[in-house]
Amino acid sequence: MARRCRVCKGAPVIDLRQHNAAFCEEHFLRFCRTQVSKTIEKHTMFDHDDRLLVAVSGGKDSLALWDILLELGYNTEGLVIGLGIGDYSSQSTQTARRFARERRLVLHEVDLEAEHGFTIPGAVAGSSRVPCSACGLSKRHLFDRVAREHGFDVVVTGHNLDDEAAVLFGNVLRWQTDYLARQQPVLPAGDGFPRKAKPLVRLGERETAAWCVLRGIDYVLDECPMAEGNNHLAFKDALNALEERTPGTKQDFYLGFLRQGFEHFAPPDAEVSARAALAACTSCGAPTAGERCPFCRLRDNAARESTPIELGRKDH
Amino acid sequence: MARRCRVCKGAPVIDLRQHNAAFCEEHFLRFCRTQVSKTIEKHTMFDHDDRLLVAVSGGKDSLALWDILLELGYNTEGLVIGLGIGDYSSQSTQTARRFARERRLVLHEVDLEAEHGFTIPGAVAGSSRVPCSACGLSKRHLFDRVAREHGFDVVVTGHNLDDEAAVLFGNVLRWQTDYLARQQPVLPAGDGFPRKAKPLVRLGERETAAWCVLRGIDYVLDECPMAEGNNHLAFKDALNALEERTPGTKQDFYLGFLRQGFEHFAPPDAEVSARAALAACTSCGAPTAGERCPFCRLRDNAARESTPIELGRKDH
Repeated sequence: MARRCRVCKGAPVIDLRQHNAAFCEEHFLRFCRTQVSKTIEKHTMFDHDDRLLVAVSGGKDSLALWDILLELGYNTEGLVIGLGIGDYSSQSTQTARRFARERRLVLHEVDLEAEHGFTIPGAVAGSSRVPCSACGLSKRHLFDRVAREHGFDVVVTGHNLDDEAAVLFGNVLRWQTDYLARQQPVLPAGDGFPRKAKPLVRLGERETAAWCVLRGIDYVLDECPMAEGNNHLAFKDALNALEERTPGTKQDFYLGFLRQGFEHFAPPDAEVSARAALAACTSCGAPTAGERCPFCRLRDNAARESTPIELGRKDH
Repeated sequence: MARRCRVCKGAPVIDLRQHNAAFCEEHFLRFCRTQVSKTIEKHTMFDHDDRLLVAVSGGKDSLALWDILLELGYNTEGLVIGLGIGDYSSQSTQTARRFARERRLVLHEVDLEAEHGFTIPGAVAGSSRVPCSACGLSKRHLFDRVAREHGFDVVVTGHNLDDEAAVLFGNVLRWQTDYLARQQPVLPAGDGFPRKAKPLVRLGERETAAWCVLRGIDYVLDECPMAEGNNHLAFKDALNALEERTPGTKQDFYLGFLRQGFEHFAPPDAEVSARAALAACTSCGAPTAGERCPFCRLRDNAARESTPIELGRKDH
């Protein structure tokens, strides 16, 4: 590592080729905080009066996010969801608890099996959805519900630049213009849904991992076993190969997209009428376009038996 | 190969996963002709009264294109350009000549070194352009010039689906909206430039190669040695990996793009004023925005000495 810290010329701990810069520990941590506060301000995500609910998985992104938000002085509590994906989920919950306990933070917990009678593997067995779809739907539903019930202003998630670039790539490959129109780093509250914000969209996975290592944060290293072989990972691989050739590819792709202002892709009339049609789910009260919300339908169709996880199943 | 020919249930020669179909020889050739005639009609590229100048490299795409256009009864002549890229260029010219001679077709020839005093390797040595840029610029200039001088209505090129999807991917990664606006399968004539058309955009490389093999067309197998390691090939690799997982990815990406109608990305005022400013190159008379056209500037800066080819140089 030939380059010295960009700021102080001290010994570097990390070289960020996409920024054409190396940093020592102190200035790397400052760089990360600055990137996050810049993102929060640029997209008017929230301010210090807002109550933030941090979606915590126990992985590097969500713990780095929570830690950085604390450093920046925001008012945060966490939420971890027990998804019932074997050891992976137990480790996630334990890691989140330890992080919160050591810092005397409030961590809310929802256990899918104990409170709703199903697990993600069970939901997948009873549904035509792929695992990541059933899981994403459940998490969004429960984040929204806890935010409503406890009066949080914003749900904050740890989606990073690699995630957002891969999602963007998938949406562009299929020209899913409705998704493109909504792929924003902050979505306003409306119709009973809380505001959503992604303050890490300017940091990559490598940076959030380095943040955790340097800050002594213990995080779950394993990727979710049910995500193995999904399209999202294939899109990441494709972008990583290009990033390796040309550092900055992912950043230019995602930030360039935001600059384009793809909101004009949104079909305003259709969206407005779909939104106008939202009513309370007859089962749980959540806002939904149907009679029962997708979460309640997923739960009711879920296999009640404990189902062994078969990796990669239904995911191609 | 388990599947039988989609049309006649006969023994298949090729399985096209992106079309979820296999074909026997007769029906594969018919499939290719149909895809090309569909493309020509859908985009109103040209009709049987137009005089077409086919840009011939001696590779599978340009020879398949010329052959298919002949089969469809179009009025065609060819043009091959001696680029001076060592053996690769000699083979290209010889292969194009043989194809034309065997079919008693008119083949125009331009030799860069004999007629303009430079080669592509020499131009690259005297310029900051990467090889594919200097070469593309020279070819476009000479195709346009021959079309003007001989009164052709359209310059027709063998760009296939793989090419167009890779170019699109590169333009999207950098959100080059001016390029996106102009990446159309047909560009109208204007300001002294002839119409340009790409009738192969619905056929992949695998299909044009199979066309040549089945039709007994001898084509240059080698890729251009100066293109090695360029971005275009990296974009192709990335898309090929995704196509392998999900057949039809490239087709959906490119045809979906065309359906979006990205013309609205064009900056109309800027483009119109740039076009209005075109005048004749003081050196060769071609329409250009500057005093001398890019081709004449490339020629004048080219190293006059015969320069050995260094593979991959300047291309990263």
